[in-house]
Amino acid sequence: MPQTAQVVGFIGLGVMGKPMAQNLIKGGHSLRVHSRSRGPVDELVAAGATAADSPADVARHASIVITMVPDTPDVELVLAGPDGVLSTLRSGSVVIDMSSISPVATRRLSSMVASKGATMLDAPVSGGEIGAKSGSLSIMVGGDEAAFARVRPVLACMGNPERIIYIGESGAGQICKICNQMAIGGALVSVSEAFALARKVGVDPARVRQALLGGFAASRVLEVHGERMLTGNYVPGFRTKLYQKDLRIANEFASTHAVAIPATAVMTQLVNALMAAGGAELDYAALGTVLFGMSGVGDGS
Amino acid sequence: MPQTAQVVGFIGLGVMGKPMAQNLIKGGHSLRVHSRSRGPVDELVAAGATAADSPADVARHASIVITMVPDTPDVELVLAGPDGVLSTLRSGSVVIDMSSISPVATRRLSSMVASKGATMLDAPVSGGEIGAKSGSLSIMVGGDEAAFARVRPVLACMGNPERIIYIGESGAGQICKICNQMAIGGALVSVSEAFALARKVGVDPARVRQALLGGFAASRVLEVHGERMLTGNYVPGFRTKLYQKDLRIANEFASTHAVAIPATAVMTQLVNALMAAGGAELDYAALGTVLFGMSGVGDGS
Repeated sequence: MPQTAQVVGFIGLGVMGKPMAQNLIKGGHSLRVHSRSRGPVDELVAAGATAADSPADVARHASIVITMVPDTPDVELVLAGPDGVLSTLRSGSVVIDMSSISPVATRRLSSMVASKGATMLDAPVSGGEIGAKSGSLSIMVGGDEAAFARVRPVLACMGNPERIIYIGESGAGQICKICNQMAIGGALVSVSEAFALARKVGVDPARVRQALLGGFAASRVLEVHGERMLTGNYVPGFRTKLYQKDLRIANEFASTHAVAIPATAVMTQLVNALMAAGGAELDYAALGTVLFGMSGVGDGS
Repeated sequence: MPQTAQVVGFIGLGVMGKPMAQNLIKGGHSLRVHSRSRGPVDELVAAGATAADSPADVARHASIVITMVPDTPDVELVLAGPDGVLSTLRSGSVVIDMSSISPVATRRLSSMVASKGATMLDAPVSGGEIGAKSGSLSIMVGGDEAAFARVRPVLACMGNPERIIYIGESGAGQICKICNQMAIGGALVSVSEAFALARKVGVDPARVRQALLGGFAASRVLEVHGERMLTGNYVPGFRTKLYQKDLRIANEFASTHAVAIPATAVMTQLVNALMAAGGAELDYAALGTVLFGMSGVGDGS
């Protein structure tokens, strides 16, 4: 395994962050880690990482600092809060925020990082827990292209090299992630509606799925989430409350720029309805349950 | 090539019907054809088919009668109108309606066919002109399963054998086609919205498409129609006015059965807006032009 002299800092060892950090260790990197809960920190230390007391303590020792936390305020706190990354960030370092957050906040934070003589990349991911574990995430990168080239080998420990795509200037990675969540949502809601209709009139959604997978309606959503809808298996996966957060960012950003996204708006309301029905912790493939009942499209109830 | 004794009747030699009929001839079938315009009839006759004066004249000589016409009233006219198929249909024959029409009308027509001692299958297709020409259509079949088994070799001349799927009783093929058009539409509208947003804020939709194709947002729509959006190439393909017809059927059918299809409803309004903007004859991938301007998402205007 390749060994690198540089220390990689990793902040946020949740469902996604922990396996991503583990893959960095497997890739031969020296890791300095921090997370709110102690459990995953201990796991990473057992695997060879060094524990840090705070984000500041991570940044003091690392030339690359990766953040992977749930939402915009979390990134703001980790970077700009007390004992935050910015308080100790070394000139020439690269901060890679792999969380999915507001592109507007990303640009603001990027300026703050730049004021320390460092560089911030936004590099949100797609592929979920499975992709995080297998190191096959898609990574959408915004920010300085030279910094991207420099950290690309680090990203390649976590993502499929062919799916690590430079999108554009600061925030462009987050904008691409918004587009990703919108495209998934449109497929998800329309498959949900189609299955709800089929089920209501006594047509087997499993056969519908089979037929549709062979044609122009084929999608990863129909394949994977369509299967979840048939079996009623909504164990996450990707939690609805996090998807709702992504859609909130999408709607806010589109409104800011006066872009009409009517289908995304409808989808957002269905996600809100699912949250209201108690589905916040279910996989977001449960979207259709507000249309066809909570017990799954395939059970005939 | 295999030769069969039975005569296959084919009514409706349009953009889809003509290549489908040609593939039946290539498959060794004796064809008796009828269409409103003379040109394609002459082409088929030159290829070995026999011309019929009317739908009745087709049905008089055929044990299998295929109809491929634009809309519900067209099928009603061809089957139940003056000189229609029902006036001469032989007992034991199978009528295969491959048009995309109302499932409710399909069931009514199926009863009328049954009253003649014959059987009607609904067998709408997906795959467009390209699939029709290459004989690789997806075919979604509703109606009597024994009759389906009998005509399956005929369908296999027009469709990919692995994608000829028996869905259920009469009308189920049409319901599956509705589901197909809904699923395509959800993907189409959300990709359109995503590209509109990216373009508005100066992010290259081509890079967004590339990134999204690697992940969970991957779909045939993103691949094929996404490419059309980037180049602004809306030469049909599948005309918007026909897609609008399919969505009309979807909305009517869902309302009849009190199934909520809010995203499909939004998509329908965007298709209506495209029609109002003069896009009826454009490929339905032009849906997004009502969001990002008629000249294409990729041209920077």
